[in-house]
Amino acid sequence: MNWFQKSINITSSKRGFEIITDQILEQVPEIKKIKIGMLHLFIKHTSASISINENCDPTVRKDLENYFNRIVPENMDDYEHIYEGLDDMPAHIKSTIIGNSVTIPITDGKLNLGTWQGIYLCEHRNIPNNRKILATINGIKF
Amino acid sequence: MNWFQKSINITSSKRGFEIITDQILEQVPEIKKIKIGMLHLFIKHTSASISINENCDPTVRKDLENYFNRIVPENMDDYEHIYEGLDDMPAHIKSTIIGNSVTIPITDGKLNLGTWQGIYLCEHRNIPNNRKILATINGIKF
Amino acid sequence: MNWFQKSINITSSKRGFEIITDQILEQVPEIKKIKIGMLHLFIKHTSASISINENCDPTVRKDLENYFNRIVPENMDDYEHIYEGLDDMPAHIKSTIIGNSVTIPITDGKLNLGTWQGIYLCEHRNIPNNRKILATINGIKF
Repeated sequence: MNWFQKSINITSSKRGFEIITDQILEQVPEIKKIKIGMLHLFIKHTSASISINENCDPTVRKDLENYFNRIVPENMDDYEHIYEGLDDMPAHIKSTIIGNSVTIPITDGKLNLGTWQGIYLCEHRNIPNNRKILATINGIKF
Repeated sequence: MNWFQKSINITSSKRGFEIITDQILEQVPEIKKIKIGMLHLFIKHTSASISINENCDPTVRKDLENYFNRIVPENMDDYEHIYEGLDDMPAHIKSTIIGNSVTIPITDGKLNLGTWQGIYLCEHRNIPNNRKILATINGIKF
Repeated sequence: MNWFQKSINITSSKRGFEIITDQILEQVPEIKKIKIGMLHLFIKHTSASISINENCDPTVRKDLENYFNRIVPENMDDYEHIYEGLDDMPAHIKSTIIGNSVTIPITDGKLNLGTWQGIYLCEHRNIPNNRKILATINGIKF
């Protein structure tokens, strides 16, 4: 059995959707040793999310941020959980909608993503944070 | 190889978001035997969800329930699937938005959740139900 | 260790939610060899999703399609990513809301789905596409 687990830190640069594929590949070089397997990325927070989406046009990330801000507004009268700021409860809601983990197949030492797929860190709080992501690999070595 | 699988039952106490971390730990003590691995929780229903979110302030669960009720309203004229009640189609929609499974890393015999993370059972029907969750563990034993 | 990986192609018949459970079972017969394990389905696109929902009444799929079209409208003035068509940015948003993978437990050679659960391919573009899904199995053989 080949299991590998590592806690990595990524500091979000600002609120919004950001591609972190290269940072993951750099911080988890063990992916290269796996012939067939899985990479699981689990963000240990409830106000940020992980997703997979388009890896090229930056307007996709901008439109996603705008969409989620509109669909999960900050100025709702009926939020009760407001003592950490107006961006806090919307961040929790976005986290449950988008999800806090992704599972990505590994094939021949590489993440088997589609041509246009990248890994996103979605920072829902106004102030950039140091986000802990637990990476777990399971698979067959070469 | 170490695989373990068990069907557990959790009776939702009412419609809404509920923390079930302790019930999972109690019903799946095999987590303690795993040095590195994964717990997969899969709810075998289409009108309830599983998520991970804030484990402390009860207003977070209340605000989440209110938010999803607002964003997935019951009184939509255009639902066709209504014969099981007005809460049925919204329950299916919430299930696809939130998701029916979570995968949680295990490290040194414990779920490697963040400080503020708890496992949520999200009951979307009005009447509490006996919900079947299939727990699957895969990992290295101590 | 028993790992198996296969790229399968499913041509979506039209925009909307479609049940593909039978196509998955037909194209991944290796499920039958697994006593306890997992099937991971990963769609290698950013404008289609995979989900699990009700497997019987076709109005559920119709209502889901209508709901997501309403909640993620095409005629938003503030989308910037529009050069691939009005259905493109909504497709990316739906993909992040619904998700691009599902993980399903295998028990005694069968997918351990609930009675009413089926696997959905969610095609968010107007023109049907040949969608690549990477199936990965990990588990104990009989």
